[in-house]
Amino acid sequence: MTSMFAQELDTPGPLASAPLSWRTTTRPEPGPGQLVIEVASCGVCRSNLHMVQGDWVAGGVPAISPIIPGHEVTGRVAALGAGVSDFAVGDPVGVQPVWWTCEECEFCTSGREQLCHRRIITGEHVNGGYAEFMLANAAHTYPVPAELDLIDAAPLFCPGITAYGAVEKAGIVPGQRVAVFGLGGVGHMAVQFARLAGGDVVAVGRNAEHLRVARELGASDAVDSTDPAQLAALEDSADVVLTFADADVVTAQALAALKWGGTLVAGVPLNVTGFHFNKAQTIKASILGNREQMRTVLALAASGKITTVVERFGMADAAHALDLLAAGRLSSRAVLHN
Amino acid sequence: MTSMFAQELDTPGPLASAPLSWRTTTRPEPGPGQLVIEVASCGVCRSNLHMVQGDWVAGGVPAISPIIPGHEVTGRVAALGAGVSDFAVGDPVGVQPVWWTCEECEFCTSGREQLCHRRIITGEHVNGGYAEFMLANAAHTYPVPAELDLIDAAPLFCPGITAYGAVEKAGIVPGQRVAVFGLGGVGHMAVQFARLAGGDVVAVGRNAEHLRVARELGASDAVDSTDPAQLAALEDSADVVLTFADADVVTAQALAALKWGGTLVAGVPLNVTGFHFNKAQTIKASILGNREQMRTVLALAASGKITTVVERFGMADAAHALDLLAAGRLSSRAVLHN
Amino acid sequence: MTSMFAQELDTPGPLASAPLSWRTTTRPEPGPGQLVIEVASCGVCRSNLHMVQGDWVAGGVPAISPIIPGHEVTGRVAALGAGVSDFAVGDPVGVQPVWWTCEECEFCTSGREQLCHRRIITGEHVNGGYAEFMLANAAHTYPVPAELDLIDAAPLFCPGITAYGAVEKAGIVPGQRVAVFGLGGVGHMAVQFARLAGGDVVAVGRNAEHLRVARELGASDAVDSTDPAQLAALEDSADVVLTFADADVVTAQALAALKWGGTLVAGVPLNVTGFHFNKAQTIKASILGNREQMRTVLALAASGKITTVVERFGMADAAHALDLLAAGRLSSRAVLHN
Amino acid sequence: MTSMFAQELDTPGPLASAPLSWRTTTRPEPGPGQLVIEVASCGVCRSNLHMVQGDWVAGGVPAISPIIPGHEVTGRVAALGAGVSDFAVGDPVGVQPVWWTCEECEFCTSGREQLCHRRIITGEHVNGGYAEFMLANAAHTYPVPAELDLIDAAPLFCPGITAYGAVEKAGIVPGQRVAVFGLGGVGHMAVQFARLAGGDVVAVGRNAEHLRVARELGASDAVDSTDPAQLAALEDSADVVLTFADADVVTAQALAALKWGGTLVAGVPLNVTGFHFNKAQTIKASILGNREQMRTVLALAASGKITTVVERFGMADAAHALDLLAAGRLSSRAVLHN
Ligand SMILES: [Zn+2]
Ligand SMILES: [Zn+2]
Ligand SMILES: [Zn+2]
Ligand SMILES: [Zn+2]
Ligand SMILES: [Zn+2]
Ligand SMILES: [Zn+2]
Ligand SMILES: [Zn+2]
Ligand SMILES: [Zn+2]
Ligand SMILES: [Zn+2]
Ligand SMILES: [Zn+2]
Repeated sequence: MTSMFAQELDTPGPLASAPLSWRTTTRPEPGPGQLVIEVASCGVCRSNLHMVQGDWVAGGVPAISPIIPGHEVTGRVAALGAGVSDFAVGDPVGVQPVWWTCEECEFCTSGREQLCHRRIITGEHVNGGYAEFMLANAAHTYPVPAELDLIDAAPLFCPGITAYGAVEKAGIVPGQRVAVFGLGGVGHMAVQFARLAGGDVVAVGRNAEHLRVARELGASDAVDSTDPAQLAALEDSADVVLTFADADVVTAQALAALKWGGTLVAGVPLNVTGFHFNKAQTIKASILGNREQMRTVLALAASGKITTVVERFGMADAAHALDLLAAGRLSSRAVLHN
Repeated sequence: MTSMFAQELDTPGPLASAPLSWRTTTRPEPGPGQLVIEVASCGVCRSNLHMVQGDWVAGGVPAISPIIPGHEVTGRVAALGAGVSDFAVGDPVGVQPVWWTCEECEFCTSGREQLCHRRIITGEHVNGGYAEFMLANAAHTYPVPAELDLIDAAPLFCPGITAYGAVEKAGIVPGQRVAVFGLGGVGHMAVQFARLAGGDVVAVGRNAEHLRVARELGASDAVDSTDPAQLAALEDSADVVLTFADADVVTAQALAALKWGGTLVAGVPLNVTGFHFNKAQTIKASILGNREQMRTVLALAASGKITTVVERFGMADAAHALDLLAAGRLSSRAVLHN
Repeated sequence: MTSMFAQELDTPGPLASAPLSWRTTTRPEPGPGQLVIEVASCGVCRSNLHMVQGDWVAGGVPAISPIIPGHEVTGRVAALGAGVSDFAVGDPVGVQPVWWTCEECEFCTSGREQLCHRRIITGEHVNGGYAEFMLANAAHTYPVPAELDLIDAAPLFCPGITAYGAVEKAGIVPGQRVAVFGLGGVGHMAVQFARLAGGDVVAVGRNAEHLRVARELGASDAVDSTDPAQLAALEDSADVVLTFADADVVTAQALAALKWGGTLVAGVPLNVTGFHFNKAQTIKASILGNREQMRTVLALAASGKITTVVERFGMADAAHALDLLAAGRLSSRAVLHN
Repeated sequence: MTSMFAQELDTPGPLASAPLSWRTTTRPEPGPGQLVIEVASCGVCRSNLHMVQGDWVAGGVPAISPIIPGHEVTGRVAALGAGVSDFAVGDPVGVQPVWWTCEECEFCTSGREQLCHRRIITGEHVNGGYAEFMLANAAHTYPVPAELDLIDAAPLFCPGITAYGAVEKAGIVPGQRVAVFGLGGVGHMAVQFARLAGGDVVAVGRNAEHLRVARELGASDAVDSTDPAQLAALEDSADVVLTFADADVVTAQALAALKWGGTLVAGVPLNVTGFHFNKAQTIKASILGNREQMRTVLALAASGKITTVVERFGMADAAHALDLLAAGRLSSRAVLHN
């Protein structure tokens, strides 16, 4: 049995307690229909932070102990289990948060597998990508196009598919005004997809650097949400609002920006006060996307129509990246690489 | 200048202060494009209660003083203004809350006229149907099919179109489970439309009589919402939820009943806590419908596929009907008739 | 190795040449993920007739020789292959035309598995249900609800899902006028689903018995298509048209009945002449449905909301049923039973 | 009564018979709700050619004699009729083919006014824009944004709205492959809108110059339809097909390019042979768009996201432009200007 290095979480707790350990553990072996990936890179998601800090213990996450976090993973195929014929050793591949689905429930058979009630989430129910190697199911492993750098590509597998899924749910028609709130890893992808869908994109946030990047990525306007006058001017102006900031004050701003009859899509939990039927608005919650959508995201990145913006950290340095994320000191997506 | 009797509101206030006066006032004359209706009947809407009690003064309703309330009105054409050729004196007609729209804004020109920012609402911005005669615009007056009784038909013009609009927004597919919360005048119409759309309807409420009526109108199941076990059994079971009860506790029950990926349509204001993106649900606010939808409601009623359930009161007796509505002592829609 | 009786086709040819042989052949054994069904009943589909007569030889159907036809099959589980845990011996089950799909292509991963380019069709690429036993894949085998008779239920697995898929594609809104052309096995199901979706259904055909049955199943009107006056009255009147008659003259009638802006859904091949952009109409071709839709059809039948209309024949008597179908002498769906 | 110069058609006939006369005629006066436009420019549409040549006499077009053709018109307000308050003399404005609609039918009240059965078409039922002045209805007159040149803007009012309407009907999702057939005035707009909606656009045609322009306007690929190998490579590859070429051979190519489950939108009449339900494809006919869509087209042009490509001719030179159009010798849209 071969070993590998990995970031393991024994017991969730405050970052100050150093809950992650970079240590030697058993390297996984592929079962039937599975493969082992030699990890190139893994994005650092806010949900990793939630799990590591113990925010989700009551919800049963992490489901195992120790666990290796990380669910936006790229790498190369290192070993193939029985019956896997679509991949060869050395192939560049990636895995997203959906690690396994039942293939038979109402969600799995109608193109909404990410809602499968028996779904297994990468790095939450099983080991993830903060490691040298990771176990994956062939059915949920994606070829990474040759045009893409494996480290830059990692965030496509969570922020990328999240943003794409939200934009597709929004049903943007060319010429519509689209306001994007929450300009982190997901928001920066959403700006690009909304622009790509023909939207006239206004990025909204309180961080000047995030706004600057949003403009570079295609936003035609940027609104500083700390300026009441700018916020007031935004009211009742957006056909579509996309929000990725988990804060009630932002949710209120986002809904105020939405036109009557408009659609808000959220990739975060929401508390909504005084949502009035009079305005005939729609709120859609969105999570990830299905396999076909994931492949589209990869193809769009390969064609250069969307891109990721990353800050690189060594895999051993995961704690540092999580510290910066918690402190709000990242201006783009952190990725850990081997 | 001819006179008429009407219920006039000088100053909104508690029902106990008798804010409505049944008194003689000026009978309206039709301007160009308008007509005068001799009122047969007017439904008593909870929004009338809100206006009369003064709940909406801050929002500018009523817009005039005195005002005649009432916005679900039937009657017969009594006089025609210049240029009105689609109606003749004596024709049975009806008017809904949308009394006038601008015909040129983005909402008016895309089949969503009820969202027109310049819309004029019957009985809130101009005089309504708690009277012997009412002024209407030909463009927003509807022929009432001969098959319908004018008194029974009145609620089609507000609960009917509200329920139809909500059901159409829900996009029900035959075989879907549809839970209806809030079994008053609108809820009873919604049960019927949801059934008509192929839904397997479960009616939810705390009033046994309302549940009994819902079953008669096509609900295949009825859930007593005061019974925790029945509510628990309802959780995560409905593909579609329709809610017409303006109460946070009901909103929470309604969302709990909604399946992952499902759609909730609300005809009331909502406060929503912890709406999680993980479940990929949709919330749609819905108000009334456009003219084409209103005509469909009338045709469906004429064919006998939907019906109203009413309690009749004399027009002079409006205060009594409002008292009963406020006290929760109506089991169906109150209608005032001349 | 056990044997069984089956209707085998060696070489397609005219019915007069008796291409089917009722003879002893090998009873199938289940491989991993498969099960063997003791057939109760199998519907007789026009596509069976096409294959048996050799109409589809150029298209590669039948793909094997000999082949056992039949793709709308019910029965009870007789044997389970390795890894099949969702079924037990004796369970009532059914199989539709989609016998296997790849589970990974863009169609399979987006809820449109019936379009999988690698799909295997029951009774065309592999043996079907004109037999005492049939091999099936657990992933494409459906529990038949206890409320249903296994013989009556067989047509749910082809006409049922075909009609349901077409009606769902049509997007019927309550109150719309729906014209159904082609009142055979599929058309009779479509009348019911269109009614169930809130449509005001007009059945159109030249066979008085078919029209009578359509009325019994919920059509509010019946149009004799041999009467020019009735056809003329139908023009430009239907919001939705559903057509299941493979004849250019019927297609022309169907399009003439469609309103401007309306949608026609076809479950048969079409030749269309002079389809004018001026009318902004939509034509959708529809085939079967996915697994989630198939389960909905079964649930609707179990609840009594839809029903099948069948004529029963012994399994040995397949040639007789095909003769009657070819001669247009069936007034409902023929089913073969053991 | 003032006079003006105009191109008048007395009797339709072959271009060689010089059916148009550039002559003095009565300048129109505005009635209530109308305005008179001093024409800056009018696009030369293939439908003008059809009318002038007499192709549509059987269909009742032209409806008056003499008639002034032309329905994609820009200019400045020259006179206002009673009750017109949204425009001032001198305002830059435009008119599209929809000159008047009834405002009350099912189409007018549901955002599909271009299907109104009582619609009046500019330059076919009433005088159009091949003139110095033109009469228009305020309700169907559009402000032209200041950023736009009035001559360049003319084709927005027919090819622009036609292409936009078709693209919106297609429901393009970012990343989809979109094939555009028929690269004339409309096709060149459609390439841009499809690209703007996130499509990966392949332009298909037999004219090298048209293909070159299409590439400049955003097509990522160009297919020479005279090359069988290129056409063969296109088969079953497009999620969406847009076709604007009125020729059966092109329609067949367009359908062959369409993927299973895909959608073809046509802005021309179609004859379709062997449209197979097996592929579950959709065909949508599309005509123009509503007022809200027209305004979006103008806003998109003002923002520089789409552009027109025109060849300019003096208004007196209409016959020359029509000659070139008939001969297939225009490489972009001809516009006549004063
Ligand atoms: Zn993530
Ligand atoms: Zn599942
Ligand atoms: Zn009301
Ligand atoms: Zn308006
Ligand atoms: Zn009383
Ligand atoms: Zn069949
Ligand atoms: Zn497949
Ligand atoms: Zn034109
Ligand atoms: Zn109209
Ligand atoms: Zn010239």
